[in-house]
Amino acid sequence: MTFELLSVGTELLLGSIVNTNAQYLSRRLSELGFNVYYTTVVGDNPERLKAALEIAAGRADAVITTGGLGPTGDDLTKETIADYCGLKCVMDEESKRRIIERFSRGHMYMPESNFKQAEMPEGCIILQNDNGTAPGAIVESENCKFIMLPGPPSEMKPMFDDMVIPYLERFSDGVIRSKSIRVFGLGESAVDEMLGDLINNSTNPTVAPYAKTGQVELRITAKADTVDEAKAMLEPVREKIESLFGDRVYGTGIDNSMENVVVGILRDKKLKATCAESCTGGLIAEKITRIPGSSDCFDCGYVTYSNVQKADMLGVSTETLKKYGAVSEQTALEMSRGARGRSGADIAVAVTGIAGPGGGTPDKPVGLVYISICAKGLHKAFKLNLNGSRENIRERVSLHALDLIRRCALGIEIKI
Amino acid sequence: MTFELLSVGTELLLGSIVNTNAQYLSRRLSELGFNVYYTTVVGDNPERLKAALEIAAGRADAVITTGGLGPTGDDLTKETIADYCGLKCVMDEESKRRIIERFSRGHMYMPESNFKQAEMPEGCIILQNDNGTAPGAIVESENCKFIMLPGPPSEMKPMFDDMVIPYLERFSDGVIRSKSIRVFGLGESAVDEMLGDLINNSTNPTVAPYAKTGQVELRITAKADTVDEAKAMLEPVREKIESLFGDRVYGTGIDNSMENVVVGILRDKKLKATCAESCTGGLIAEKITRIPGSSDCFDCGYVTYSNVQKADMLGVSTETLKKYGAVSEQTALEMSRGARGRSGADIAVAVTGIAGPGGGTPDKPVGLVYISICAKGLHKAFKLNLNGSRENIRERVSLHALDLIRRCALGIEIKI
Repeated sequence: MTFELLSVGTELLLGSIVNTNAQYLSRRLSELGFNVYYTTVVGDNPERLKAALEIAAGRADAVITTGGLGPTGDDLTKETIADYCGLKCVMDEESKRRIIERFSRGHMYMPESNFKQAEMPEGCIILQNDNGTAPGAIVESENCKFIMLPGPPSEMKPMFDDMVIPYLERFSDGVIRSKSIRVFGLGESAVDEMLGDLINNSTNPTVAPYAKTGQVELRITAKADTVDEAKAMLEPVREKIESLFGDRVYGTGIDNSMENVVVGILRDKKLKATCAESCTGGLIAEKITRIPGSSDCFDCGYVTYSNVQKADMLGVSTETLKKYGAVSEQTALEMSRGARGRSGADIAVAVTGIAGPGGGTPDKPVGLVYISICAKGLHKAFKLNLNGSRENIRERVSLHALDLIRRCALGIEIKI
Repeated sequence: MTFELLSVGTELLLGSIVNTNAQYLSRRLSELGFNVYYTTVVGDNPERLKAALEIAAGRADAVITTGGLGPTGDDLTKETIADYCGLKCVMDEESKRRIIERFSRGHMYMPESNFKQAEMPEGCIILQNDNGTAPGAIVESENCKFIMLPGPPSEMKPMFDDMVIPYLERFSDGVIRSKSIRVFGLGESAVDEMLGDLINNSTNPTVAPYAKTGQVELRITAKADTVDEAKAMLEPVREKIESLFGDRVYGTGIDNSMENVVVGILRDKKLKATCAESCTGGLIAEKITRIPGSSDCFDCGYVTYSNVQKADMLGVSTETLKKYGAVSEQTALEMSRGARGRSGADIAVAVTGIAGPGGGTPDKPVGLVYISICAKGLHKAFKLNLNGSRENIRERVSLHALDLIRRCALGIEIKI
């Protein structure tokens, strides 16, 4: 079964927003084993939308549209598809009821035009929207299925995951389940090499890697007749991968970030962490406090950019700063010890380095970073030599610091 | 002249990356007054690429491709377009020389396959690539112009701005110049209303607003016979807009962020700033230190998440914390005073609030934030009531804090 994505919206053609919907759907469909051969963007223009629909329906088994389901006269996706399939749009009472309920719950005035959203192509499968007012729809014409989803990602994603995937499973001779394993501290090529045949010759389950700054996410996807069977197929591959990467596996789940995992572990173990930051300038603290509930495990952070403040705020000795410099193992060690002592936290990390683009010397080039951790019975520092932009270096250093907190809190090997 | 964008790359169809190139080009073309009616994504597959090209060439005056110019067998954009236009690809010696030079400069081994990148459709206009190895090309066929750009945004953007825009100006009866004005502290609808006819009835120059979290960028674009004329046309509109928004205008230029402007002003005025952060958790410090050279104007930052640390690190009195609570005007004022006193900075900002999603009460709901500034002869606090996600609230609060630093450093009215 081949797919085409058709994103509808003039705001996309003007470049006002980036088409993250197409990326999300492409990724999910490829994980499910479906092929996407084309994605197209078209504006809120009935003739051009119709022309794009005809082309898409002519070359794909299923077309997924996003956008154009809103209440205004510009929103024409449903009407154009109904017209193309020779169907009328008729009021769906359940959808109407839900729209009224949504507005009254929010104590908002509801313009009459909103009922347009409840007029659905006759005979379609209605996809109720739990996160907005526009229902989605599936129309099965003779040669092509049209799956219409709302444009806002917060409405589109859950509708696709919760309603479209179960629908698509009918066409895939069984059910599809996937599992995500997140690995930190190895490059994509190293992960590829270690996985070897697990990636190259995998058919069912398949294993696919997705690289992000400093991390690789491995997606295992299995196709089977039943959910239990699919889950049973995932299990041995998951075990194999987890034993291959050992404690480099820091989490599972698609949207599970390192900071999310770290805050979860700290709360679980009732531990507190702190950070002393020079080159990351607040990024480690910022990442931790992104997570709701981080106040349980994080009282404070120190951003010490100047030498004077490394001494004042953290108690790094001026002798150390003079003798070894701010970017040194010794300074990093004193920073983490000072942060732990002053904050009373269980675990302290500290980073000092040269993020660039300026400030490097032959002895201490851009990308040289020292990172240190201090906890009960533990006081270590590591040296990193990183390439990349200032932003990229800061991002990777912050992830290394968080990974050290994770390792320390879990009581596993402390390494970079 | 109508355009179609054709992005080539299987990684886009797999959802491994998001198509930011299409957004960039859409936006730039719309600013230049050109219409984009469709954008299409196709994989590295010669038949489907050819089919997509035929459709695009049939409905647009010009097709801009991105991607598929690399050295591997998968990269087929140039070959497919040459084939479609009945042209051969021939070695371009200048492009070859530049590829060799680029590799030798980086002390990298160069696979022979790289010379494929220097084989260009005969008679094309070659767009030399200053940021990578793949040259771009323009082929002018009878009915359609094909503009081929490399896929990496860092190569594509400068090639488009520096070489394609001057080329396109030939077809637009003159030259096009634009200017960007950045406004902080007003919503998009407020900006729209204030601009009134300047937006609605603008034809040449045009004024277009782009909203980002807490900010609006206004783009003025003029079309004229000469560069001087275009610039002269921009000037009165720029003046009008700047006088309309007064000190809410914080900067000019497309990529000029608030933190960039603030660090520039502080360095210029030889002032130092610091920040005491509760609900933003390090974001203000992180933004300032994103900017290279920020160490000239930023020594340290305080992330004080708990009450104990607000007292310990900043000297907020426990009485204040007990009587008014951590989220109060009084605490914000004591935080900024403490941060300024302890750091020795000229300007200190402090923020304390409830970023959510939890932690709100009827008295102090999610989105309630106090923000304070302390400098010589200045000690003020402001109350904000914000809506939105935790991320959105933190982002807007950090921008308000930076804007207060900007206002203080410039000696203009201190307001939210």
